[in-house]
Amino acid sequence: MTSPHDAAEAPRGSARAASAGRGDSPSFHAMWTSLHGIGRNAASGGYRRYAWTQADADCRLWFRMQAEARRLDVETDRNGNQWAWLGDPTAGDAVVTGSHLDSVPDGGAFDGPLGVVSSFAALDELRARGVSFKRPLAIVNFGDEEGARFGLACVGSRLTAGRLTKEQAYELRDADGISLPQAMEAAGHDPSTIGADPERLARIGAFVELHVEQGRALDLSGDPVGIASSIWPHGRWRYDFAGEANHAGTTRLVDRRDPMLTYAETVLAARREAELAGAVATFGKIAVEPNGVNAIPSMVRGWLDARAADQSSLDKVVAGVEAEARAYAERHGIDLTVVRESFTPIVDFSHALRDELSRILGTTGKVPVLGTGAGHDAGILSEAIPTAMLFVRNPTGVSHSPAEFAAEDDCVAGVLALADVLEELACR
Amino acid sequence: MTSPHDAAEAPRGSARAASAGRGDSPSFHAMWTSLHGIGRNAASGGYRRYAWTQADADCRLWFRMQAEARRLDVETDRNGNQWAWLGDPTAGDAVVTGSHLDSVPDGGAFDGPLGVVSSFAALDELRARGVSFKRPLAIVNFGDEEGARFGLACVGSRLTAGRLTKEQAYELRDADGISLPQAMEAAGHDPSTIGADPERLARIGAFVELHVEQGRALDLSGDPVGIASSIWPHGRWRYDFAGEANHAGTTRLVDRRDPMLTYAETVLAARREAELAGAVATFGKIAVEPNGVNAIPSMVRGWLDARAADQSSLDKVVAGVEAEARAYAERHGIDLTVVRESFTPIVDFSHALRDELSRILGTTGKVPVLGTGAGHDAGILSEAIPTAMLFVRNPTGVSHSPAEFAAEDDCVAGVLALADVLEELACR
Repeated sequence: MTSPHDAAEAPRGSARAASAGRGDSPSFHAMWTSLHGIGRNAASGGYRRYAWTQADADCRLWFRMQAEARRLDVETDRNGNQWAWLGDPTAGDAVVTGSHLDSVPDGGAFDGPLGVVSSFAALDELRARGVSFKRPLAIVNFGDEEGARFGLACVGSRLTAGRLTKEQAYELRDADGISLPQAMEAAGHDPSTIGADPERLARIGAFVELHVEQGRALDLSGDPVGIASSIWPHGRWRYDFAGEANHAGTTRLVDRRDPMLTYAETVLAARREAELAGAVATFGKIAVEPNGVNAIPSMVRGWLDARAADQSSLDKVVAGVEAEARAYAERHGIDLTVVRESFTPIVDFSHALRDELSRILGTTGKVPVLGTGAGHDAGILSEAIPTAMLFVRNPTGVSHSPAEFAAEDDCVAGVLALADVLEELACR
Repeated sequence: MTSPHDAAEAPRGSARAASAGRGDSPSFHAMWTSLHGIGRNAASGGYRRYAWTQADADCRLWFRMQAEARRLDVETDRNGNQWAWLGDPTAGDAVVTGSHLDSVPDGGAFDGPLGVVSSFAALDELRARGVSFKRPLAIVNFGDEEGARFGLACVGSRLTAGRLTKEQAYELRDADGISLPQAMEAAGHDPSTIGADPERLARIGAFVELHVEQGRALDLSGDPVGIASSIWPHGRWRYDFAGEANHAGTTRLVDRRDPMLTYAETVLAARREAELAGAVATFGKIAVEPNGVNAIPSMVRGWLDARAADQSSLDKVVAGVEAEARAYAERHGIDLTVVRESFTPIVDFSHALRDELSRILGTTGKVPVLGTGAGHDAGILSEAIPTAMLFVRNPTGVSHSPAEFAAEDDCVAGVLALADVLEELACR
């Protein structure tokens, strides 16, 4: 595995940056290095930057220091998102870029941080170009994008967009039973004012999020940078399989109500249904009670993550998995409850903004436009404001893993593309 | 669910006890009541009495108080087992009874405690009969029988019998990474002297353990009490399925190396193999990394518990499950490691002692002799000293669950049977 440190050393003197005569950003290198150790688990080599933990506080401090070093005005909004402003935040029609710094359990270095680091580096690039800004510019660090701790993704942007109410947010709990407001309070953030923030959104004219690609489309097409067309509809469903705890050594097979069997059948059913529909479906998280070697479980909880290019394919997968699970549950004497924990319909990014990005970046050749199965804050905000996304090539497609990676030249290409977009949007 | 409290009220005035003119044991009731709240989880109604925790300390204090109230001499041996002595412990040829007080996660009230409570109650019964003891008598509370915390069952008796070395025991760790010696030390027990204790075993002439049945054989035969013939050979195997962590939304199915699929196939294979061999096989415990809803796991660890009436059936199941798992792993691109974490060969209890129990208890009719799939301290000790077990009827067969239960009359019958055995062994 190449570390982010290695990837970050590239920009200086890379052939591409040199030939373009721009993009030589030592700040990019320094930013990767200073982020490297925050929330990193030495054993796995992955990151554990969960919302409102110490690692999260360290990320927030890092963000503030980067912003202040660039003489940007930093504020944390009511929902815990951090904003670094160049120009007057209240002037309106602001151009916003950024991403998030939190991670999934043992996540990689790029998912989120690449967008934040590239935003600061793009600002450095624009200043090096000597441009002058005609619209306010902000770099944002959205809170709790991955949902690793409280089970719901994009909490910061959902709250801001009014797609998660204060009451719903107050119900969120982590694995230790700590509620979201308790965690916020412990981290020094007042939870009493969380909720929709339409005034803030009304002052934003465009939001562009740069992100490492979480698939291999750019690798297959041979392009370093792409533009997002849409985010697949996707959701999470919790399957509670309730059986009967019993002794694993003395209970006859015929007397068992073992929910692990039904869970196993359902895992395999999800794979089959996804294959049939050309979609993806995953059981990646499980909780078992009592989880003892010699005890038949009383309860197995599994979480289904399902996504498809369109709503009808997704509906087919979700209904198919549940129908199969119910049939197996009936056969095994298991009580099954299925709860939809979250759902995001298809996001079609602003066609006007997407076309503008294609035009800006297309001066030296065609830039591919691609869909993605991953949710993003940009997707959450796309109903309220014009949003667009840039993807940076990921040669293996691996994401949410310590092996997640983007090559040095591609990171530079991403910074330059973002700088070009921001210059066109904010400086003309 | 009927609570142990309810079951405990029975002895007083039950028809059976009255007609026999004996067994009226108010102490039995008081003992159940005083044990009721120790380590009980209010939400599940089950017990969480894990080795060297506060709940375990509370159980040990309870044992000491019961012993001292009966003017027995209490000692804790080098391996953390508690002994309550009537007569001279050094005289030799002692008759020992007892069981354990710890529990599986959310276990029932009877597995273990019924044997300890019945031992004290049987002593009360013998004193009420006015017998005089010709051999030393001890009641024992074996430490860490269930292995709920450190993953290995019967640690107290294994150490004493020399079937677990000090070095092996020092390697045991709980889910929080705390080692067994650290846990012992924190609980006030010196771990430096743990290990084989042949002198202690040499002073024991017979060990009889009473236990709630963990199956329905007595219910099917219509008998309140039975005698153990053998303990099935049994063991635990850890299956490590190593795949590749990746994003659940963006990774194409064909690019995945998802170990959850292989785990699911293996769970179902275990059930099939057990059915074919007339054995039992269970996957009741799992650990997943990173265990995130939107992450394909990098690692799924599952524990196989397998047991059969004879070694060759067990071998067939264990080999069959592993072969199937390896075939699935190959197909899914998963690296599979299988580790045997523990194994106990078939235990045939002392035929002489078993026949003597049959004779003692058979004066009023035939007492069934039955095998069991559950491991016990009596099984561990059976190589070193003559051991026997009495089982008390369990009407549903449910065990290792809050629903575990034995009826009031049957508990009384168990106490009286144990008293008859102890009287014959220790007083003639």
